[in-house]
Amino acid sequence: MQLTRRDFSRLGALGIAAHLAPGALRAQSNQNAQAGQKKIGYAVIGLGRIAGHFMPGTRNTTNSQITALVSGHRDKADRIAAEYNIPASSIYSYENFDEIAKNPAVDAVYVALPNSMHAEYTIRAAKAGKHVLCEKPMATSVADCEKMIAACKAANVKLMIAYRCHYEPTNLRAVKLIRDGALGQVQAIQSAFGFNISPGEWRLNKQLAGGGPLYDVGIYSLNACRYLTGEEPDQISAYASVIDHDGRFNEVEENVAWTMRFPSGIVASCTTTYGANMDGYFKVYGSKGWLQVDNAFVYQGLHLRAEYSGTKLDEPNPARDPSQFQAEAEHFSHCIQTGQQPQSPGEEGLRDMQYIAEIYRSAGINT
Amino acid sequence: MQLTRRDFSRLGALGIAAHLAPGALRAQSNQNAQAGQKKIGYAVIGLGRIAGHFMPGTRNTTNSQITALVSGHRDKADRIAAEYNIPASSIYSYENFDEIAKNPAVDAVYVALPNSMHAEYTIRAAKAGKHVLCEKPMATSVADCEKMIAACKAANVKLMIAYRCHYEPTNLRAVKLIRDGALGQVQAIQSAFGFNISPGEWRLNKQLAGGGPLYDVGIYSLNACRYLTGEEPDQISAYASVIDHDGRFNEVEENVAWTMRFPSGIVASCTTTYGANMDGYFKVYGSKGWLQVDNAFVYQGLHLRAEYSGTKLDEPNPARDPSQFQAEAEHFSHCIQTGQQPQSPGEEGLRDMQYIAEIYRSAGINT
Repeated sequence: MQLTRRDFSRLGALGIAAHLAPGALRAQSNQNAQAGQKKIGYAVIGLGRIAGHFMPGTRNTTNSQITALVSGHRDKADRIAAEYNIPASSIYSYENFDEIAKNPAVDAVYVALPNSMHAEYTIRAAKAGKHVLCEKPMATSVADCEKMIAACKAANVKLMIAYRCHYEPTNLRAVKLIRDGALGQVQAIQSAFGFNISPGEWRLNKQLAGGGPLYDVGIYSLNACRYLTGEEPDQISAYASVIDHDGRFNEVEENVAWTMRFPSGIVASCTTTYGANMDGYFKVYGSKGWLQVDNAFVYQGLHLRAEYSGTKLDEPNPARDPSQFQAEAEHFSHCIQTGQQPQSPGEEGLRDMQYIAEIYRSAGINT
Repeated sequence: MQLTRRDFSRLGALGIAAHLAPGALRAQSNQNAQAGQKKIGYAVIGLGRIAGHFMPGTRNTTNSQITALVSGHRDKADRIAAEYNIPASSIYSYENFDEIAKNPAVDAVYVALPNSMHAEYTIRAAKAGKHVLCEKPMATSVADCEKMIAACKAANVKLMIAYRCHYEPTNLRAVKLIRDGALGQVQAIQSAFGFNISPGEWRLNKQLAGGGPLYDVGIYSLNACRYLTGEEPDQISAYASVIDHDGRFNEVEENVAWTMRFPSGIVASCTTTYGANMDGYFKVYGSKGWLQVDNAFVYQGLHLRAEYSGTKLDEPNPARDPSQFQAEAEHFSHCIQTGQQPQSPGEEGLRDMQYIAEIYRSAGINT
């Protein structure tokens, strides 16, 4: 995808900052490399599944590297440390994590813990003077999101929520087509994302997860409707349900369907579930045509199709994991180096959390 | 599609009567033909677009024929009468329509008028002692639907609403797969249907149409969610909007998105529009897999895809228009001949009208 300077400023005006396009990101990195700037050092907090994507992602950047690990499993941490040339002195436990303040090799942390722990470790990292890249969902409550933003502000560190899709070429391509008017006036969006969850996952524990599929995967559809329209919903209504009484859903919902109305009049219908495999997608309907991205929210295999005004697009994205993690790390490191505000700051995560709370309220779920 | 007797009775129990499968319909017709039974004679009321599909559809049946026409355009009626061997004495205007009572060649009427006229002509036909096959939407108000049912009951004539999809093999195949448990426990449905309407259509006149795209095409998604689940929604919420202030939407809405919750907990999200082309489809997500029908609500080109438990289906339906009209005529004629209740009686149309009224109420639209 080629984006011109004018495209960038349009995207910027619509909340998708200009410097997010992958080409631009590469250009940034090259500049960094040429300038011989020191790479941003990350401490990874939580060595679970997603950290296993982020860490290799940083290897492909020119401005980011893993310099410390935080884990409750020393064996695992030692193995990974060897792989990334991290000295034993830069391996922390959750108990001695605050000592990270004294580690000059750590500029930032990547918070890859269960949702309910995001707030605590974001705030502790801020107090230790480290910038914070925090996984989505930002936290398990609006109040926690607000505390995280305040803590980072007070410590004068940057806070970015790891919304991969904001830095992902196919999602950006969809946004650009819409902004350029390819679809004419957008009328409606449909989106879904879900999976059939296995028993025993921490995601089914409300205290750790905050809620069910809406927190975990539905948030992608919610966030997508916002970046696709460039608007904030002014009305939201929702239904939730538990159909399978098999022990998995004692604490969190199984299904949520919600509808949003945006100020322009665009309507969006989203569904999420932990009871069925539901490949993430969005479809946008406009007066001149439609656009659909399948596998829109996963690490690879994204596919854009569109038909408008006699044009037919069929664009599979050949990029492979961990390219999306590379892009988000590159962006955050660049922001730290240049003093720019990240494109998906804490306020972006807070907004989604506010909408999630509204969806739950509408569906009659206590939060 | 092969349906066994057991399948039929299951479908019957679920509100999709056994005798609806096309194979069975053919068997009925053959029986009729063998029995040398007199064909059911139809008067077509309103010679617009859809009548142009219904009339050739009857030609492929063994139990139905066009025997009279009702039109405000005598020229047009004369042309069609010549084509269908209809005597001049069986051509009626809207003024002398009631004389149809004396015409023994007419057993039933097919009401293919703008929505607001369905009630009047259904009631006048009933008073003339004729059975009524009435196009969807049944009417423009719940009160009218109730009057239509009462009039047909009082006159002891049958009333069927022309829900083509109830008699259409790909839709029936989807229902059967779901009922047979192929998808496991259904969790969620998404559906949409809409088109970018041209200015000047009667569909944009609220008095004639009753409302906007929800009445005209959204009703397909609404009805589909009911036959796919075999349940009646117990909660409905909706948003509507007008985005294009270009004169088309002075009377009716442009977009509606609505969500339904069914007693089992299944959630359904539907969208309809007059502001964008939106191929009709539904996608059903279950614990064991998914099923999608594209072009689900049009006259031909329906396409079923599914993936569940290691099975992958890709079934384009080769049937061509007017096969769906043939099937519905065949069914209604059979009901008249045998005294059976049609599978989509007036009560089915009334239910959709009640849900439409609820959707409008929720969206803040005065009806």
